[in-house]
Amino acid sequence: MYYPEPISKLIESFMKLPGIGPKTAVRLAFFVLDMKEDDVLDFGRALVNAKRQLIYCSNCFHITDRDPCMICDDSSRDRSTICVVHDSKDVIAMEKMKEFRGLYHVLHGAISPMDGIGPEDIKIAELLKRLTDEGVQEIIMATDPNIEGEATAMYMARLLKPTGIKITRIAHGLPVGGDLEYADEVTLSKALEGRREI
Amino acid sequence: MYYPEPISKLIESFMKLPGIGPKTAVRLAFFVLDMKEDDVLDFGRALVNAKRQLIYCSNCFHITDRDPCMICDDSSRDRSTICVVHDSKDVIAMEKMKEFRGLYHVLHGAISPMDGIGPEDIKIAELLKRLTDEGVQEIIMATDPNIEGEATAMYMARLLKPTGIKITRIAHGLPVGGDLEYADEVTLSKALEGRREI
Repeated sequence: MYYPEPISKLIESFMKLPGIGPKTAVRLAFFVLDMKEDDVLDFGRALVNAKRQLIYCSNCFHITDRDPCMICDDSSRDRSTICVVHDSKDVIAMEKMKEFRGLYHVLHGAISPMDGIGPEDIKIAELLKRLTDEGVQEIIMATDPNIEGEATAMYMARLLKPTGIKITRIAHGLPVGGDLEYADEVTLSKALEGRREI
Repeated sequence: MYYPEPISKLIESFMKLPGIGPKTAVRLAFFVLDMKEDDVLDFGRALVNAKRQLIYCSNCFHITDRDPCMICDDSSRDRSTICVVHDSKDVIAMEKMKEFRGLYHVLHGAISPMDGIGPEDIKIAELLKRLTDEGVQEIIMATDPNIEGEATAMYMARLLKPTGIKITRIAHGLPVGGDLEYADEVTLSKALEGRREI
């Protein structure tokens, strides 16, 4: 072997991460050798803690270090609106916007028959359970604007219809700062379809 | 804060690595959450072990987990030739070639007045010390082919001249598989200068 064992193990670990090939893994591993020992210990601890301390909120299934999560626990938030998203990263994207004051529901996936993921594999039943005891007035379907996301949104809209709760879908259209010239046909057609009077 | 603390700490740690910005750090951190716990523990352990167990060989200054390193300790290697390189990654590149059977000397840097790095900041004195007790016949200067590498090679060649040991420099020229059309002028001029009869 070319590398002493401790570094080859570290290279292997880095290679398990997405988008990190052998060359980048070597570069990162050697960078770690030059880092301050405290920083490396912090890094190791952060890895283990993130894996061990983070749990899913029993209400909305967002990742959290305490149950219920900060958002579900925040009494200042509007409990009548639930925004349904695919994963915790989507919650964070919404929170960064600082405009939405309702609650979330994280599905942890999307319905995708091709990948063998059905409605029972994602947290849909858990959402239905939440609706029984909360005074929810609107459910915003903020699943990703792709085939799986659309299918999930449609399926859930149909499922939730009998509850009488208002179901909305986030708008499709051109991204702000985008270029009409480079927009794909489907986006453009959705943007036209969703046009509003100004 | 948008993220629960354990994950924001992990994101911070990833961001300390070279070439990893905020978005990639978030992606990697969330990937870690989905990894198997054993893999994450291995990763954390690999980080700490790489930092704690790796030392520099007291002879050649290559990174190693035991002193002297595997290469210096290997009695089948040719002790009359020392290849001088910038860092441990260069040793590994040379070893991968599987053709060089001599020993190495890792300088851990290059002379660079602009960055305030003088000859006393890199392991030149340590090389001189090695020359007194070993039957060295040739020193191959395999420092990088850039300004600092050339300067280091030139400085050391002058310094070592009085010892009478043969000093050589690895060849400059077109990389194999390269394209003459895209070669820069300096490389092309070096390639022409170093031409050999066939």
